Amino acid sequence: MTSQQPTLKRKVARWQDCHSSFVEDELVVEEPIEIRVGDRSLIVVMRTPGQDFELAAGFLYTEGIINSVQDIGTIAYCEDVEQVDLQNIINVNLTNGWDAESEDGWQRNFHANASCGLCGKMTIESVRQAVPPIDSQLRVNPEIVYMLNDQLRSAQSVFEATGGLHAAGLFTSGGELLIIREDIGRHNAVDKVIGQALLAEMFPLDNHVLMVSGRASFEIVQKALFARIPVVVAVSAGSTLAVELAQESGMALIGFTRGNRMTVYSCPERIQQLTSKNGNNLVA
Amino acid sequence: MTSQQPTLKRKVARWQDCHSSFVEDELVVEEPIEIRVGDRSLIVVMRTPGQDFELAAGFLYTEGIINSVQDIGTIAYCEDVEQVDLQNIINVNLTNGWDAESEDGWQRNFHANASCGLCGKMTIESVRQAVPPIDSQLRVNPEIVYMLNDQLRSAQSVFEATGGLHAAGLFTSGGELLIIREDIGRHNAVDKVIGQALLAEMFPLDNHVLMVSGRASFEIVQKALFARIPVVVAVSAGSTLAVELAQESGMALIGFTRGNRMTVYSCPERIQQLTSKNGNNLVA
Repeated sequence: MTSQQPTLKRKVARWQDCHSSFVEDELVVEEPIEIRVGDRSLIVVMRTPGQDFELAAGFLYTEGIINSVQDIGTIAYCEDVEQVDLQNIINVNLTNGWDAESEDGWQRNFHANASCGLCGKMTIESVRQAVPPIDSQLRVNPEIVYMLNDQLRSAQSVFEATGGLHAAGLFTSGGELLIIREDIGRHNAVDKVIGQALLAEMFPLDNHVLMVSGRASFEIVQKALFARIPVVVAVSAGSTLAVELAQESGMALIGFTRGNRMTVYSCPERIQQLTSKNGNNLVA
Repeated sequence: MTSQQPTLKRKVARWQDCHSSFVEDELVVEEPIEIRVGDRSLIVVMRTPGQDFELAAGFLYTEGIINSVQDIGTIAYCEDVEQVDLQNIINVNLTNGWDAESEDGWQRNFHANASCGLCGKMTIESVRQAVPPIDSQLRVNPEIVYMLNDQLRSAQSVFEATGGLHAAGLFTSGGELLIIREDIGRHNAVDKVIGQALLAEMFPLDNHVLMVSGRASFEIVQKALFARIPVVVAVSAGSTLAVELAQESGMALIGFTRGNRMTVYSCPERIQQLTSKNGNNLVA
């Protein structure tokens, strides 16, 4: 149903202990999709391409916009855009007369997502128009990165009790934890960390490292970019769009940090085995 | 900054093998918060209470609405609502003249979230007005539930390659996997599963079980409820709001399914050691 693939190959730097090598890795594709009802834009969500008609049908159903399959007249990719092969816009024509304009309260119950529905390339472009690349010269030792996850986990208070929270932590380039916040939403935890840094007048954060539990999505990279953070570390995988935005913005995006291993998806030059002559903080 | 706690205690049924006992568990609190700018509603997000001013400041910053802490005039909980102790509405007055009305393109880039900003109780009420409780008589064997996670993982194709995807699977009450979908977004994976079931005219799903990777949030329970699925199983923790909606809707919500252990958060009567005389599908 779509020409887009759910994964893409990309060269990454895989680190173990003090050594790194460039290998080809498979990344999960993250692309925006716009769902239109009767040619009117309803929502933009980030998704993995594939089964887009099902996604649209399921979304309309679980939002209460349709009540049965008979309420769907047609579902089709829009062909009124220049790049027809993008297949990131779907139009659904309904037979039940539902109209967003007349649905009081539907429109206001939205969760922001800074993306346009046409394609990831345009999404990145719109972010890049809002914020320039990071020009920090920060370099971080791999040993510092390996330590972050343990620090974040041991500082998490609520997670221990419930096992249900994401965490985000702001660290110095030497690995000192400055701020930690927990939330059911990874993006909220990041907003709380950045908001605290903003309110405490710690900006700019161009000598800092952000670590998040879970995966590194486009949204996390976008938030870190606004705060000018040059190194972002996730516990789990990065998506294509997150990696592309990080690379174009001069941000090192790191994933799969497990013990003394990690995958550097972008700007691998920011991770270096440094000697103390450089004046950076080092592990003893 | 808020009177609300990040966790709440709640009685749950903890299963191991064929035995269950009721214990007190600590759940992470999920509550909607509405962020207003100049008394005008901007966004509603689900979040864990705590550091709400930081959340608002960080959100406005990482969306490019403010550029420095000086752009913030005041941040305060709204007191124009009857239940002032709810503290789920924040108003930010800006000094930079930003106005959503004049920001072309900001409003349309939204991600739907079916919740009102006042409190979780009202959010549940609005869902319950849209869909009645599930009246299915479905009972499921604990051994069936223990098998689901392995089945979901072994059927996940993209995850194996990337480690970056959430999965959702629709099962029969006997544990047969009918539909599996993967996506970077857990809610998208659920929409794709429900959308596929809708398009294939498999509704109603009141004899089925939904399993999701990761946590069970309010949004997942809401989607399953629209599809009338009486048993929802998550790999990780459930949130307060998810558990409350499930309980009020007659849905068994299960979390922490690891090997032959699980936590049943709501409607524990749906999980029963059944004999084959009942005519249900059983493990041999």
